[in-house]
Amino acid sequence: MKILISNDDGIDSLGIFHLYNALKEIGEVTVVAPLSEQSAVGHAITMMHPLRVIKFYKDGDFFGYAVDGTPADCVKMGVRNILGFLPDIVVSGINHGSNTATSVIYSGTVSAAREAAIMDIPAIAISVTSHSVSNFATACEAVKKLVLLIGEKGLKKGTLLNVNVPDLPAAEIKGMQLTKQGKSKWDDVYEKRVDPYGKEYFWLTGDFVETDDNLSLDQFAVRQKYVSVTPIHFDLTDHETYDEMSGWKIDSLL
Amino acid sequence: MKILISNDDGIDSLGIFHLYNALKEIGEVTVVAPLSEQSAVGHAITMMHPLRVIKFYKDGDFFGYAVDGTPADCVKMGVRNILGFLPDIVVSGINHGSNTATSVIYSGTVSAAREAAIMDIPAIAISVTSHSVSNFATACEAVKKLVLLIGEKGLKKGTLLNVNVPDLPAAEIKGMQLTKQGKSKWDDVYEKRVDPYGKEYFWLTGDFVETDDNLSLDQFAVRQKYVSVTPIHFDLTDHETYDEMSGWKIDSLL
Repeated sequence: MKILISNDDGIDSLGIFHLYNALKEIGEVTVVAPLSEQSAVGHAITMMHPLRVIKFYKDGDFFGYAVDGTPADCVKMGVRNILGFLPDIVVSGINHGSNTATSVIYSGTVSAAREAAIMDIPAIAISVTSHSVSNFATACEAVKKLVLLIGEKGLKKGTLLNVNVPDLPAAEIKGMQLTKQGKSKWDDVYEKRVDPYGKEYFWLTGDFVETDDNLSLDQFAVRQKYVSVTPIHFDLTDHETYDEMSGWKIDSLL
Repeated sequence: MKILISNDDGIDSLGIFHLYNALKEIGEVTVVAPLSEQSAVGHAITMMHPLRVIKFYKDGDFFGYAVDGTPADCVKMGVRNILGFLPDIVVSGINHGSNTATSVIYSGTVSAAREAAIMDIPAIAISVTSHSVSNFATACEAVKKLVLLIGEKGLKKGTLLNVNVPDLPAAEIKGMQLTKQGKSKWDDVYEKRVDPYGKEYFWLTGDFVETDDNLSLDQFAVRQKYVSVTPIHFDLTDHETYDEMSGWKIDSLL
């Protein structure tokens, strides 16, 4: 299998290094990842300035290509200019920190995989729940098995799997659980500070408020020590509201 | 009605000025918008550096608050710190250029409205199809009517309306059309250039390939001279694939 990998923590992160080592056991891996950390960039792409591509070495060996852009930029650049063909699968991660529920919207890790899905390439986004990851082994095992499963069964065009793994030793993981995106969300607070020149500035902080209470929802599943696997797509149409609005007669509004 | 407006073209753009003038006829409007252009930033939020808020004047009069961040940052900051309460509606735009089909994913305009939807505030994103907009009048008329309609009928929590208006005089508009997100997408090309120091850099370019052929799809509807209104949400779960994968028995994979 020809595998393109990317992430949002940057090419020098520990997570992508573990992912690379895991996936090279089952395929031919090309790394195209951001030069610097790009967390919470959502599905940003770079149009206002040009991009550069830099060959990146780890311990003296060529590791991959660094792009001074976003995760979505890396996948576009990786497919269009570096590979020049559609790989069999794109895998994004292993992210340091979970991407569940409403966090999926803000996630750079997920956006790299979604960019692949837009190009009709099967894709996986994989995250471990803790920012200071202790256990990459379970995530590596899960992603290898899922890549092979997708190779066997295929994945509908435009769909990707968003995988979240509890930061626990393999023995404590209860199993793999198919889930839907939960509704838990951030309660945002801006912390006000004053700079050395007397001017105000604001840091985004807040708490993740968990409202999901069902094993079929991503955030609850990882909390219950399951590896959560959520199929997501990029059709944002709210079909329920579409049906309701069909009775609103908006065609006569203008 | 208490209305918060934002955009992605920046607080000094023509589109937000027209939107402000239109909506102040029907409500109390507060402007919180990016200090600089933020096109194609997707749903990025700023966590790696702090934000500043600047009072912005137009022709000597106070116009609104400029934030040195993304559209989603502006809505968070506007609701949490500037208003301090949930407005009745958030409107984002008027964007210079359409946000239909796959472009919705990359759109800063839509992300501002979606940030409101995440906070359970009704929201509208409004765009005119041409980058050098000639006709704001139709968009202004459409958005006023839609804001009043939502005020009357309400909108399901977590849903926003993505509105796209052809850049045509009112007399040439065929009407308003309820639509779904289309599948047309960009065929990306990176244009290679060489800097004055002999190093390569790449500009993202490409063509928007229109594959939609049905009036129920956003891109086709605006092309046919209709104002397109698409209800969208942020549940990205691919329910069809979820049902299919229920037969994959992934619970026995680990």
